[in-house]
Amino acid sequence: MTPALTLQCCEDLDRQDPLAALRDQFELPAGMIYLDGNSLGVLPRATSARVAQAITQEWGQGLIGSWNSAGWFQLPQRVGDKIARLIGARSGEVVAADSTSINLYKVLGAALEMARHDAPHKTKIVSERSNFPTDLYIAQALCEARGLSLHLVEAEGIEAALQDDVAVLMLTHVNYRTGAMHDMAALSAQAHARGILTVWDLAHSAGAVPVDLHGAQADFAVGCGYKYLNGGPGAPAFVWVHPRHTDRFWQPLAGWWGHAAPFAFTPDYRPATGIVRYQCGTQPILSLTALDVGLDTFLAAEALGGMAALRRKSLGLTDLFMQLVRQRLAGQGFDIATPESAAGRGSQVSLSRREGAYAIVQALIARGVVGDFRAGDGGQHPDILRFGFTPLYIRHVDVWHAVDHLVQVMASGEWRDARFAHQNTVT
Amino acid sequence: MTPALTLQCCEDLDRQDPLAALRDQFELPAGMIYLDGNSLGVLPRATSARVAQAITQEWGQGLIGSWNSAGWFQLPQRVGDKIARLIGARSGEVVAADSTSINLYKVLGAALEMARHDAPHKTKIVSERSNFPTDLYIAQALCEARGLSLHLVEAEGIEAALQDDVAVLMLTHVNYRTGAMHDMAALSAQAHARGILTVWDLAHSAGAVPVDLHGAQADFAVGCGYKYLNGGPGAPAFVWVHPRHTDRFWQPLAGWWGHAAPFAFTPDYRPATGIVRYQCGTQPILSLTALDVGLDTFLAAEALGGMAALRRKSLGLTDLFMQLVRQRLAGQGFDIATPESAAGRGSQVSLSRREGAYAIVQALIARGVVGDFRAGDGGQHPDILRFGFTPLYIRHVDVWHAVDHLVQVMASGEWRDARFAHQNTVT
Repeated sequence: MTPALTLQCCEDLDRQDPLAALRDQFELPAGMIYLDGNSLGVLPRATSARVAQAITQEWGQGLIGSWNSAGWFQLPQRVGDKIARLIGARSGEVVAADSTSINLYKVLGAALEMARHDAPHKTKIVSERSNFPTDLYIAQALCEARGLSLHLVEAEGIEAALQDDVAVLMLTHVNYRTGAMHDMAALSAQAHARGILTVWDLAHSAGAVPVDLHGAQADFAVGCGYKYLNGGPGAPAFVWVHPRHTDRFWQPLAGWWGHAAPFAFTPDYRPATGIVRYQCGTQPILSLTALDVGLDTFLAAEALGGMAALRRKSLGLTDLFMQLVRQRLAGQGFDIATPESAAGRGSQVSLSRREGAYAIVQALIARGVVGDFRAGDGGQHPDILRFGFTPLYIRHVDVWHAVDHLVQVMASGEWRDARFAHQNTVT
Repeated sequence: MTPALTLQCCEDLDRQDPLAALRDQFELPAGMIYLDGNSLGVLPRATSARVAQAITQEWGQGLIGSWNSAGWFQLPQRVGDKIARLIGARSGEVVAADSTSINLYKVLGAALEMARHDAPHKTKIVSERSNFPTDLYIAQALCEARGLSLHLVEAEGIEAALQDDVAVLMLTHVNYRTGAMHDMAALSAQAHARGILTVWDLAHSAGAVPVDLHGAQADFAVGCGYKYLNGGPGAPAFVWVHPRHTDRFWQPLAGWWGHAAPFAFTPDYRPATGIVRYQCGTQPILSLTALDVGLDTFLAAEALGGMAALRRKSLGLTDLFMQLVRQRLAGQGFDIATPESAAGRGSQVSLSRREGAYAIVQALIARGVVGDFRAGDGGQHPDILRFGFTPLYIRHVDVWHAVDHLVQVMASGEWRDARFAHQNTVT
């Protein structure tokens, strides 16, 4: 039998943690254990001064000239290059722009156009029923506009759904509810064997787990800037397209920033080559500047082993959390909804509980332990208490104290207090 | 004969200007005469502290809770309500989100869907050949996807082009090159008489001239946050749809922020009612916060007569500029490309010149007079020197000195210097 974990074990793990110093890059509210970096990453210490400089110097003094002198024009590409290093893409293949939903529309639109040209008998998009809903909404709208159909399956039914009439397999790599992670390389290979293109949403992967888009032979990918990348609320998202596809078709949001010569002001659209074609309009430079700083927090990690080292720590944190839940919360009605195999999970752990999940999350927040709640569907997908463990700044003692608070919340019954009953949550 | 204008006249005009104090709301670089607020508005004094607060307090301390406690969720609508007051829309009818190009895609997509349903024989979009190119690119992409055609005409040919097979008339209210302003009410009436929907781009109108969307019976409108609204580089854009249309059809970018219940996380898209339906994904909160402050600079103007008073001053400034050009630059090869009638122009004056327009703009910039250059097409549309006069912060003496510098640039011939020859410009 495994000996019981103690607070002292966790303190020892922190002392031995080769990545411990990375936490100093962030402003963390005193007294808070923040396990919601999978929803909104924390504030890097460098962001405030850098954005202030962009406002007072670049905008205030440089004004219009800063499009060139401060490099605003190339900022989506410069930021994209930093993201590329985290997801197995190459320099020049990623741009940071717009929102995840909009980038998904671009790549799904282009993928469907490719399929229509190459294999017009393919009329379906396959996705997962518990995919993040906006991905499904975007796909649904494209299907209605183009006379296609969206076929939703459970995770275990994906392989069987990859039939010859499928044009695109669209998946979120790490499930936002459960933290379950798909095998991108295996699914891409299965899809390609049937002539199916793959579109990956990396919202809960980029900066959370190692991603190797080229290694996995993925076709298209999008992702989020404000979760694990610490870009700030609503930070621009990103988009990647395999270079074998970028120049084949237009993406539907064919705006001037994707034009081959945007300042020629010609009335005819002529798309740029490469990923620049996946830009549309002018980008929010202040928010993009904050995202740029968020990504810099990964630079210090590169010298310490990069995403592989972050992944080792992340798996250690999530293992620790699951062990402590089993050790200290047995019989309290919690199930671990996240796969326990290392290969099968991202950087979060979700607990399900038949009742009270929302109130328990609120009671924890009142104690300064910030996770979040995701409603179930009353059937196969239960209510979820979601805890994100971002290895850049979460310590092993934070995991201990989070579980300890949860033990106290359950022992005291305080979660039954009426003030925790109202549901009003946020991704 | 009109007596010659003098610097003293301009100083007198500034002393009598009831809006003169509004300039104190802005940080203006010392020694610069900034006549490019039509491209990127200047920095309000309040922006830096407000964005710093959003970063350090709302994001840094409030973290995920700020979506509710700091009102981030409603920010697109709160900012939209401020914009509504400037464009003749009502509270709750405008959201600030995404880019102008993307918002145009939304409204044009919805308008075409309406037309397809109500009048399937209508297969054309009519626009102006010298419309801002991204508007044409977006229309072009939608036309190709839906088997429609884009019919481009010169301004004087618009009325004749409004035939029965036209679904949508898509125009930019104030032309970005010439500053010529369309009669929105008259064109909307002509369009409606033929069953044609109108889509207006207010990029060079909102905050620059009074706009009355309801009075003009417009159908759809979009516009820009970073020009006259002083929202900062790449600030989010805005979108308005007449309430008689909002709930009839989906817009194509049907993301979760446009869902009736985004946090129910249901797999099926169910659009919100009203303009919220025209949202798509998460918005860049830092950039949106800066736009919010930019709009507040119009609040002080409201007590002084609002857009009507700003328009009076704007017309005074542009009249003054044109008079001084005629008075002091006769025989220097400049033509005034902007209509001289008050009803026919926005808040900018464009000069055309057969040669040297780019170099002359650069020589002016080197002297601290910032206008910009727009290339012509070698034919009907000549090269343009563009000067924007934003009545919130431009003085009459600025107009005097700008023209005085232009006189000196021409008299000295300094614009022929090789360092001004390279073309590299920005909207």
